Amino acid sequence: MIKVSIIGASGYSGIYLIYALSLRPDVFISSITSQTYSGKKLSEVFPQFKKTCSKNNLISELKFSSFSADTVAESSDAIFFCLPHNESSKLMPDILEKNAKIKIIDVGADFRFDSMETYEEFYGKHNAPALNPKFIYGLSDIFSEKIKDSQFVANPGCYPTGALLPILPLIFKGAADAAFPVIIDSLSGISGAGRGVKLQNLFCEVENSVKAYDVWSHRHLPEIKEKLETAFLNSPGASYNDMPDILFTPHVIPVSRGILTTIYMKLNNGVSRENITGIYKEFYGGSPFVSILDNIEDCNIKNVVYSNNCHIAFETEKKQNKGTVKIVSAIDNLGKGASLQAIQNMNLMFGLEPDCGIPAYSPFP
Amino acid sequence: MIKVSIIGASGYSGIYLIYALSLRPDVFISSITSQTYSGKKLSEVFPQFKKTCSKNNLISELKFSSFSADTVAESSDAIFFCLPHNESSKLMPDILEKNAKIKIIDVGADFRFDSMETYEEFYGKHNAPALNPKFIYGLSDIFSEKIKDSQFVANPGCYPTGALLPILPLIFKGAADAAFPVIIDSLSGISGAGRGVKLQNLFCEVENSVKAYDVWSHRHLPEIKEKLETAFLNSPGASYNDMPDILFTPHVIPVSRGILTTIYMKLNNGVSRENITGIYKEFYGGSPFVSILDNIEDCNIKNVVYSNNCHIAFETEKKQNKGTVKIVSAIDNLGKGASLQAIQNMNLMFGLEPDCGIPAYSPFP
Amino acid sequence: MIKVSIIGASGYSGIYLIYALSLRPDVFISSITSQTYSGKKLSEVFPQFKKTCSKNNLISELKFSSFSADTVAESSDAIFFCLPHNESSKLMPDILEKNAKIKIIDVGADFRFDSMETYEEFYGKHNAPALNPKFIYGLSDIFSEKIKDSQFVANPGCYPTGALLPILPLIFKGAADAAFPVIIDSLSGISGAGRGVKLQNLFCEVENSVKAYDVWSHRHLPEIKEKLETAFLNSPGASYNDMPDILFTPHVIPVSRGILTTIYMKLNNGVSRENITGIYKEFYGGSPFVSILDNIEDCNIKNVVYSNNCHIAFETEKKQNKGTVKIVSAIDNLGKGASLQAIQNMNLMFGLEPDCGIPAYSPFP
Amino acid sequence: MIKVSIIGASGYSGIYLIYALSLRPDVFISSITSQTYSGKKLSEVFPQFKKTCSKNNLISELKFSSFSADTVAESSDAIFFCLPHNESSKLMPDILEKNAKIKIIDVGADFRFDSMETYEEFYGKHNAPALNPKFIYGLSDIFSEKIKDSQFVANPGCYPTGALLPILPLIFKGAADAAFPVIIDSLSGISGAGRGVKLQNLFCEVENSVKAYDVWSHRHLPEIKEKLETAFLNSPGASYNDMPDILFTPHVIPVSRGILTTIYMKLNNGVSRENITGIYKEFYGGSPFVSILDNIEDCNIKNVVYSNNCHIAFETEKKQNKGTVKIVSAIDNLGKGASLQAIQNMNLMFGLEPDCGIPAYSPFP
Repeated sequence: MIKVSIIGASGYSGIYLIYALSLRPDVFISSITSQTYSGKKLSEVFPQFKKTCSKNNLISELKFSSFSADTVAESSDAIFFCLPHNESSKLMPDILEKNAKIKIIDVGADFRFDSMETYEEFYGKHNAPALNPKFIYGLSDIFSEKIKDSQFVANPGCYPTGALLPILPLIFKGAADAAFPVIIDSLSGISGAGRGVKLQNLFCEVENSVKAYDVWSHRHLPEIKEKLETAFLNSPGASYNDMPDILFTPHVIPVSRGILTTIYMKLNNGVSRENITGIYKEFYGGSPFVSILDNIEDCNIKNVVYSNNCHIAFETEKKQNKGTVKIVSAIDNLGKGASLQAIQNMNLMFGLEPDCGIPAYSPFP
Repeated sequence: MIKVSIIGASGYSGIYLIYALSLRPDVFISSITSQTYSGKKLSEVFPQFKKTCSKNNLISELKFSSFSADTVAESSDAIFFCLPHNESSKLMPDILEKNAKIKIIDVGADFRFDSMETYEEFYGKHNAPALNPKFIYGLSDIFSEKIKDSQFVANPGCYPTGALLPILPLIFKGAADAAFPVIIDSLSGISGAGRGVKLQNLFCEVENSVKAYDVWSHRHLPEIKEKLETAFLNSPGASYNDMPDILFTPHVIPVSRGILTTIYMKLNNGVSRENITGIYKEFYGGSPFVSILDNIEDCNIKNVVYSNNCHIAFETEKKQNKGTVKIVSAIDNLGKGASLQAIQNMNLMFGLEPDCGIPAYSPFP
Repeated sequence: MIKVSIIGASGYSGIYLIYALSLRPDVFISSITSQTYSGKKLSEVFPQFKKTCSKNNLISELKFSSFSADTVAESSDAIFFCLPHNESSKLMPDILEKNAKIKIIDVGADFRFDSMETYEEFYGKHNAPALNPKFIYGLSDIFSEKIKDSQFVANPGCYPTGALLPILPLIFKGAADAAFPVIIDSLSGISGAGRGVKLQNLFCEVENSVKAYDVWSHRHLPEIKEKLETAFLNSPGASYNDMPDILFTPHVIPVSRGILTTIYMKLNNGVSRENITGIYKEFYGGSPFVSILDNIEDCNIKNVVYSNNCHIAFETEKKQNKGTVKIVSAIDNLGKGASLQAIQNMNLMFGLEPDCGIPAYSPFP
Repeated sequence: MIKVSIIGASGYSGIYLIYALSLRPDVFISSITSQTYSGKKLSEVFPQFKKTCSKNNLISELKFSSFSADTVAESSDAIFFCLPHNESSKLMPDILEKNAKIKIIDVGADFRFDSMETYEEFYGKHNAPALNPKFIYGLSDIFSEKIKDSQFVANPGCYPTGALLPILPLIFKGAADAAFPVIIDSLSGISGAGRGVKLQNLFCEVENSVKAYDVWSHRHLPEIKEKLETAFLNSPGASYNDMPDILFTPHVIPVSRGILTTIYMKLNNGVSRENITGIYKEFYGGSPFVSILDNIEDCNIKNVVYSNNCHIAFETEKKQNKGTVKIVSAIDNLGKGASLQAIQNMNLMFGLEPDCGIPAYSPFP
């Protein structure tokens, strides 16, 4: 039985962690913390948890508590942090002092970057730089080997997950023509903005609309860039100067969940449709969650929401053979893009099968 | 291992049955039939099934076949029928001849009525009247005892499920003042209309709108009425003439899934809020799926979709004490209102716990 | 040229007033006030007003100001108040002192009640009880004659508009059986909750859901009741004791605009379908906005949004002839239910045609 | 009084033409044709037209007729064609024989191309090639001068309108670096697929989802390309070989109306943010409908639906100054992208102000 705590459990990713973990016979949720709802029963705030259908997790009786390093350190084998940035890094050192072996999955941004400099440019002063090198970037379907051996995992951002899963393999294999930018155009459901109460997230402002935002400055751009650069430097024949420029444009669309990412890349001479298929097969042939679809229209949000799946489809230009490829990927921003990938990481860290207790299908419609 | 077949598996309830059953380690889906998609792989038509995360059900390899009584009879311990009315009753006799012990759960309407006369008035000539008396009405949370001993279960309609779960206990206990009608005002998601291609179900016709339909003639009214009448006749001090009139008004709202039902009833003199609480406790105190909520606003569609739960909340008038009660219930029309209740019935028929392998929470948002 | 001011112009009804009034060649918007946005250009806050297509209203240059009784009194022939309750009644006396002839249309609740007692029970202490008797209840399609002669009009609430237009004529004519309650079940778009920033109005909380609220206590119930009672007392052969009970249940549905109201009434012996048609014809035969539709499914929100129309359809029970009728009405809560009815009232108060400059069609889809 | 006929009036663009034209005092709708609904009253099929609020157009009495060249030719000063491709070109010659002066606005694709070869590659054999050279491409805010003198206007496609309005000025002025592709990523509401009854347009398939389609083969790509190439060849210092590659990816999003287009372009050395502002000012400074917004988040669908506006916003990269610009445009696909631009063209062809009788604001929310 794996005992887990979820810190910051009342946001959308925390709730979804509770949902997915409570159904498992091999996981015991020992504590869930929330500043806002401390002392309240989970089912009082989120009535979908009114009934318990789990033998080991009396979900209907679970209560939010306020954070205590002692309680969490004593009662947990693993912790999930679902906090605003610069919060988890404040709390971790204290917990680790009390329980040096506790496994940590940080769903937030604090430990996603190799470069402390980049982190601080976009997120401000880091609270635990010494801990940073211990963390593995938890893009589970690519870095599973490293994650298995790790005590500390930084769960990727939602947009980076949707972008890196299709792009990273092509960069690793040196398929991209560095003279052209890689363009990442992403469409996200509103839950990506969290449960914070803001005018721009009101139903009447969001419904029947769509917009782009933070088109040059979104914090997920440096995260995507760093991971692609590292891959690029390890690809055949690469030099730093050749790294393709990365453009990223996030949009919000009127759905609760899901991210669709449309990617434009120029391929190196001689890289064919078959080569790409081959690369994806090499990377994802054995993956329980990443699928390559034949038809781009099938690669939509509806087919992946409420699952940990990532669907990828691509088409190269046939007529003029100018070497451009369009790739589309679809994930659930709260599933593969947050809580379910976090559980996949937990599975790996505890030596379990990656898909243990994780929904792999969308319950469409 | 329970071997099951799903007949008419490509509609919304069939697909959701596949989804929910394939995740179980104790169920093997031996065949899924579809006239439209016969010969095609499930994952080709419904790409959410591209990956398999089940050890025993290779869902990504599953294929639709055309119906064959031989195959189904041989390969199944239980059959789920998800067909238009008057279709399952055509196929059953032949199957039963080949396999007399096969268990049947009919998600369609053919065997929901005690009265053949009522059935034929609303659905036309019945194809297997001799089979009808063998069927138990599968409102699982009320009739679980009878279902346990039965080989044949008629799964209730979606609207009747949302209406009967809150009303039946009050009628059984003689709480309703028969001089006043029971008014049932229901709001349903569009999936209730099925996957048929009709102008009125196009996105642009449905989105941003809401309407009532079949306000005096919906086929679920006689189903609701028959079950309430039977209950009424078994209630303390009832006579047929006293049966309250039942009014039912269905509406469609722009959501994919879910039914919210608002009910207006006049209570008999002396029936208090506490009495109603007591009645519900008696009926649903041990139920794994039916909850009574304190707050009517919590009783919404979002809190039950993708689950087998039924949420009920009610408020009596405080000021004038005229004895009227408003009751609201929320279910997922494809979950509790169709496929998940069907699985709950299967569980009961096979001597399993009712909640075995059934999601009891909604993954909100 | 009618000079108008809009007080509280940055909410949904204020914005829609600006939208509709600015397109008129015979109206000049002399001031729009907003505490929140004072000093800002309208088009900066609401970019849909970036261009002007009106000769007389330079809408793209219009600015929000803070409220000044002097400015408003001097610069306006008519004022629209779009404020929270108990606010307009605070400001009016001062304005009237400075401009005794100014016409006032209050879109808020302050002057909707004949009975000060009822008002204060539901809204708290009234700020200008002396002004109250001067106000006419602005249900334009019923009370147009009184409105024409009035300087002061209290615009009805959105739910009351959707309920009273279909019910009032039947009560006036004594068609309702007083032994049975009139049940009003309403479904409203979220804009009815205003532009206030609350958790419950976030997209992710509203989308894919529906719920009832304030089922016994909504403030629009006493408004509906008072108007029906007055009508009842003026109907043939009525006595106060006979007044049917009125039940009202509001729900929110995931659309931005629109209200669908489903009404259940018991008719007096001998009142036929034809009688009802006749009554509606008498009341609305000449109305530019109220239509009686043959088909209840056509009476939906989509067909009336962005218009000042009210669609009504009804069906009596055919089989058992128990005298119950179901009536459905559809309006735009911000159009007929607020801003466009307010303009209809302005038209009447200035001796214009009621439909002058008011959109009578919905631009479906 | 301009007498108009609308051929193929029962689709979404036909209906919106009726809506917008019927409100005008200077336009008389003499006939509306529909194969499907011939003989039926408009208000029977589209109940939003139940009332007439127009003095000259008795909209509530208008009837669909089947097409007759005689009737149309006799009774009309102008014709709007809203037909599937290759249909209007079949009907036109006959009409023109009967009325050589009739003005024609073709909302369909038949006459949008200069190159008959390109047209036939994408749409099949053309039915009236001799007529093609007489048509002006009706991108009204750019080509108004030519449109004024023309009898024949080919109304642009919806995607091309959203793409060309922001891009064309920059190409005309030689601002684009031809070594890099122009990437056009568009998100369209479902009404763009028309009122045809297809599985993929059902509410349950569209809601809560988003997908890309026809990513290399959409028919609007050659339309966009031809117009950009013509502009490019007329730009300073251009040669054909230098033409930037054009990539276009359409997506469908779960809204009824609206197109958001995100464009990526590399600017020539030395082209600054100020230059772009200057170019747009030159092209659209006097436009009644095209606005340049400061804030990209304001450039959303909600702010333009139900109007003829096009909103444009752009941001250049600040940090690295690599010369890439992101431009976003928003239009209503049925407004500026179809029916309202068609009316703007009619206005120009009849010597009226371009914005005569055209809504320039969105009635948000």
